[in-house]
Amino acid sequence: MAEHSTPTLAESYAKASHRTTGNGQRNVQVLLDAFQEISGDTPSDMYGRGETISKFERKLAEMLGKEAAVFFPSGTMAQQIALRIWSDRKNSRAVAYHPLCHLEIHEQDGLKELHHLEPILLADEERIITLDDVKKMPENIACLLLELPQREIGGELPEYAELEDISAYCREKGIALHLDGARLFEILPYYGKEAAEVCALFDSVYISFYKGIGGIAGAMLLGDADLAEQSKVWKRRHGGDLISLYPYILSSDYYLELRLPKMAQYYEEAKELAALYNAQPAIRTRPEVPVSNMFHLHLDGVLAEAAGPVIAGVQTETGVALAAYLKETGERSCSTEIAIGDLYETVPKDRLRAAIELLGRRLADM
Amino acid sequence: MAEHSTPTLAESYAKASHRTTGNGQRNVQVLLDAFQEISGDTPSDMYGRGETISKFERKLAEMLGKEAAVFFPSGTMAQQIALRIWSDRKNSRAVAYHPLCHLEIHEQDGLKELHHLEPILLADEERIITLDDVKKMPENIACLLLELPQREIGGELPEYAELEDISAYCREKGIALHLDGARLFEILPYYGKEAAEVCALFDSVYISFYKGIGGIAGAMLLGDADLAEQSKVWKRRHGGDLISLYPYILSSDYYLELRLPKMAQYYEEAKELAALYNAQPAIRTRPEVPVSNMFHLHLDGVLAEAAGPVIAGVQTETGVALAAYLKETGERSCSTEIAIGDLYETVPKDRLRAAIELLGRRLADM
Repeated sequence: MAEHSTPTLAESYAKASHRTTGNGQRNVQVLLDAFQEISGDTPSDMYGRGETISKFERKLAEMLGKEAAVFFPSGTMAQQIALRIWSDRKNSRAVAYHPLCHLEIHEQDGLKELHHLEPILLADEERIITLDDVKKMPENIACLLLELPQREIGGELPEYAELEDISAYCREKGIALHLDGARLFEILPYYGKEAAEVCALFDSVYISFYKGIGGIAGAMLLGDADLAEQSKVWKRRHGGDLISLYPYILSSDYYLELRLPKMAQYYEEAKELAALYNAQPAIRTRPEVPVSNMFHLHLDGVLAEAAGPVIAGVQTETGVALAAYLKETGERSCSTEIAIGDLYETVPKDRLRAAIELLGRRLADM
Repeated sequence: MAEHSTPTLAESYAKASHRTTGNGQRNVQVLLDAFQEISGDTPSDMYGRGETISKFERKLAEMLGKEAAVFFPSGTMAQQIALRIWSDRKNSRAVAYHPLCHLEIHEQDGLKELHHLEPILLADEERIITLDDVKKMPENIACLLLELPQREIGGELPEYAELEDISAYCREKGIALHLDGARLFEILPYYGKEAAEVCALFDSVYISFYKGIGGIAGAMLLGDADLAEQSKVWKRRHGGDLISLYPYILSSDYYLELRLPKMAQYYEEAKELAALYNAQPAIRTRPEVPVSNMFHLHLDGVLAEAAGPVIAGVQTETGVALAAYLKETGERSCSTEIAIGDLYETVPKDRLRAAIELLGRRLADM
């Protein structure tokens, strides 16, 4: 081994025989699997019309208990448009969300540059939004966006009762409540609720088909019929009303059917894996006990450049892939995101335990 | 026959055994054909990165002689963004295009609603833009968009020398010239030019992969490296920077390879078909002699509601599909668009001639 250059974290992750995270490679096989049973004479959707798109929209509207659903190529497009519609309805540019909201940090400020909305940031980067934060919002907020779970801090959730209180408060004040439900299905086992129950607390909902569901791409925006119709106009304006979205629609439906029944399993597995990590003093997870299929792994007091080769070594020696990347989080500490999918159950438990114990020992010795 | 209700134009078109227009049904088979030779382990593009997208972008940049190319889910998105970038560079919101430009009539005013650009309309709905129109533009125009061919008036083109003069004038005046090249490859046989020669007259170019090329969806924006980089930022803002665009990228490449060599054939066939129609006094085409694979069929002095059943009858009786729809064009006249693709050559010439003659006689008798 010493004769060769050490593989990087990503390389050792890719080469390991057993992966603890995700649903597998993002490659063309994902498309081929989804289309293997679909007949070639299935007609394309045509600019948002036709049974191929409208049937899937109706299915999700019913599942989530909303009047109407509109399929979008991306959540970025769907959510900007939802907030814009709420803003226009209330004639106020002010919307509110978390400082680590996708719209704030991952969309090149599309909401501001294209729609000129003025977001107010609630809570802070270290914690989720509480009822207190919501009560302190200015009166002119057109829409409050809540992301469940709050992904960038490991996937944390408010208690369900607090969510109900936030919803009731917003209704009382005439503030639209929008759900960033990119990972909605992943949180239902923890809440012990049906999707429609959670969605009933919100005026509009976005869900993604390529997070836990593991599709190719695609999103759905749900709400009242007026919102749906207006969102189609904005979809056209954004350049998202493609002549054919069926590669995403049909594959989204396929993976939804495949993985919705597995969300409870992913959740239990996330708790199991987090417990294995937390048994090592040099490692902690956030949340300590996951509330969905995801959590963040934190290595305190270690730089990413020092921890990377250690994890890579463990992955190469044990054949168990634990982390594909590390990012610096504050001074002398680093973290990575863990999301449980189909692959976790394929990892032999004894090898997994041995790999994590080896990693824990080596980190403790640093 | 009289016992049954008359099929509509669209129904009779769909049922006919031979179709004169297009490349065939827009259905899932289009995707299955494109992916039959693609290996499942081909990696996905990832948010605009990776060989699957960058290889295709480089290929088109080279083919069209531009510094850089960026794949987009739609032309709507690509062209708004191109005009926005030119507008920002010149610090002027004024852009210029034809009154029947796609951005003006098919995009729900995305250019105005999202980018607040202020288009000036050149020429009029009955004719293409000339050098004279261009010379009369205000000085503050940031970008002139030319659509070649001008689709909504049947696919007309300026003579190449005039195009060169327009390009030279714009360069002299510091006005960016953008090509709406949704049907760029379709006009090369008439001009007798390579794609790169035509594109050299323009500062930025958009091409489509689902018009003559017949892909599923997708577009490319080409220009200098700065424009390409800025367009990626705007693509993210629009919600078009999908985690995976490979269903469109790989199928676009497949159909580009399949149909680029056929563009000269489509052009010759369009001229042949237009001549057959123009031999009937009740029918005329625009252009009279096509300059690409497309033209419009005009029935003067006949309402669409009267002509529709006549065409439907001919299609049902002869099995030759001529037109799928009619639209009113002015008082007591109607038209339809003809675009030649793979199917034209499969229509037996004697049956085609007989069908058009029958249609001509019936229209003349009305």
